[in-house]
Amino acid sequence: MKTLSHELQSVAEAVAEIIRDESLQPAFAPPQLRQAVLAYPLTGGKALRPALLAWAGRALGGPLPAALRAGAAVELYHTYTLVHDDVIDRDGLRRGHPSAHALMEEEGRRQFGLSHEAAHYGLSMAILAGDCQQSWAVALLATLPELGADPRVTLRLINQLQRVVGPAIVEGEARDIQLPFLPVAVVSEADILHMMRTKTSALFSYCGWAGGLLARGQEDAEVRALAEFGERAGTAFQLQDDVLGLVGSEEKMGKPVGNDLREGKRTLIIALAWARATEAERAQLSTVLGHADASHEEIAAATALLRRLGAIADIQTMAAHYLQDALRYLDILTDNAGVRLLRELAGTMVKREK
Amino acid sequence: MKTLSHELQSVAEAVAEIIRDESLQPAFAPPQLRQAVLAYPLTGGKALRPALLAWAGRALGGPLPAALRAGAAVELYHTYTLVHDDVIDRDGLRRGHPSAHALMEEEGRRQFGLSHEAAHYGLSMAILAGDCQQSWAVALLATLPELGADPRVTLRLINQLQRVVGPAIVEGEARDIQLPFLPVAVVSEADILHMMRTKTSALFSYCGWAGGLLARGQEDAEVRALAEFGERAGTAFQLQDDVLGLVGSEEKMGKPVGNDLREGKRTLIIALAWARATEAERAQLSTVLGHADASHEEIAAATALLRRLGAIADIQTMAAHYLQDALRYLDILTDNAGVRLLRELAGTMVKREK
Repeated sequence: MKTLSHELQSVAEAVAEIIRDESLQPAFAPPQLRQAVLAYPLTGGKALRPALLAWAGRALGGPLPAALRAGAAVELYHTYTLVHDDVIDRDGLRRGHPSAHALMEEEGRRQFGLSHEAAHYGLSMAILAGDCQQSWAVALLATLPELGADPRVTLRLINQLQRVVGPAIVEGEARDIQLPFLPVAVVSEADILHMMRTKTSALFSYCGWAGGLLARGQEDAEVRALAEFGERAGTAFQLQDDVLGLVGSEEKMGKPVGNDLREGKRTLIIALAWARATEAERAQLSTVLGHADASHEEIAAATALLRRLGAIADIQTMAAHYLQDALRYLDILTDNAGVRLLRELAGTMVKREK
Repeated sequence: MKTLSHELQSVAEAVAEIIRDESLQPAFAPPQLRQAVLAYPLTGGKALRPALLAWAGRALGGPLPAALRAGAAVELYHTYTLVHDDVIDRDGLRRGHPSAHALMEEEGRRQFGLSHEAAHYGLSMAILAGDCQQSWAVALLATLPELGADPRVTLRLINQLQRVVGPAIVEGEARDIQLPFLPVAVVSEADILHMMRTKTSALFSYCGWAGGLLARGQEDAEVRALAEFGERAGTAFQLQDDVLGLVGSEEKMGKPVGNDLREGKRTLIIALAWARATEAERAQLSTVLGHADASHEEIAAATALLRRLGAIADIQTMAAHYLQDALRYLDILTDNAGVRLLRELAGTMVKREK
């Protein structure tokens, strides 16, 4: 068996090929919109979601081409949420490149000679690019019968994505926006977990479910187990994401560390640390939390405090528990290459460095 | 036969009922997002698109319930584009109420005590609300087999909306943003017509096509004629929209007149007037075009100039030609109540005052 990273690489390449296939693309125009729409999908995501979907299908003996195309659709869907999140969070970098709105702002200056209007132009084009990516993702799903998927199963995949998962992601993002407006002490761990599960875990859960449904043609205990697996693995992933946002390598991640603190994001790390902190320590945290202009030194000192309070280590332990929980759901499946890849994938989602 | 306005009213009520049906709604949360998502759909649009879709289906003897639900989906889809357009155009009013981002900005001040952050909060929530409306619209289409639609036809409706029409609308909006950055003289009538056809006509064309396809189960000459009818009627509608944006009643439309000029929008009216204007008249137009702070008097004087140059009357004539062109496509259909309603509807789209 090839190593996991080789297998992941081959899913990422298959997804890139589907995304580049012009016969499956909408006719993106004008050229600036095309540039904004294709920017993230073609700068190499990790393809974790497509891999989860494709391997969930493989675990139940399903056909690979339909699962890979559905995986590419999910990757595009994820991309749409990133483009809009970057606008909302005013993040200027994504995977080491300018984020979509920053790219469009720069192009607006260069191509149209914009000055004070450039930022609004960039934001406007990024909104439209994300809109287009959502459309494209769904259009791609609608073509699955070309690869042998049942039309009714395909409609079920579309309905679940658009009625349940999409609104859940949006709910998570809305809560992510709102929680920093509330005092740290009134935001419970349950509030933060709910935000994470809607914003992140719902789409991973969908991947497990969709791969299973494409293989089985109907929902059964194994399909549901794959959905639960994806849900837990997704939460573990997000916990690790929060850790990397504080102590990861900027070079590996292609974005600045500490921005979660500057944006005042309510992560479980913050909630845990706050509950344990003295008044003086809380005051120190308050000087960086939600302060966009916090210096590198202030961020480093706050991060050291979070570490000293045990919050970072405890969240890593929690991620490991979610991982174990995820893996237990795979126990009811007959062991095969697909199941083994899912186990390795979940492990990597927690141990990753970017 | 009931009058057209009664028939339109009954479509609008059926659409509102579908939109209010919680069994068909995603679980919108948090409550602020729910408020933003439902704001436009429940403040009474004219339901022109759902009527066109439902009556196109009726013209070919199709089942009404599926066409009405598809019409409600199109109305929601249209709403998503309005919410994002209002963010992009920074329009504070829609149908006499605060636009989605303005509403959320105000709620942000009230509920979270925001001050300088309120505008970005409003914009962020409006982006998410539009995202959710796009998802909801497609989820609704995916349920059409519940009302007897063929699953393959349903997938075709989804694919066409998301691969062709959605990206066309986004293209039109992107061009609408970009054209004002270019000198008036270099923007051709063809450029402006292309922008209008993508931004507006494509969705009306879709309504004719989708209603026909639901009735027939496959594309034939009559289905294509309904698409062409919708396309021409949509262009006539947009031409009249541009006229109303200059000389309409603010009270009837629920939004300020003259904003197209202040935003520097490139309408055919402007192109026509510019071609006929003297240097002095062009200089006068330039003092308002794209000047957000143009006074009521300056706008009124510019509008009088556009009228004097014959641009407004000529665009009304052009709209009448598109209407005639639209109606000709209906000639190949066997006359029935559906066809007669489509004829009346197209007439109303050009003669409307709001």
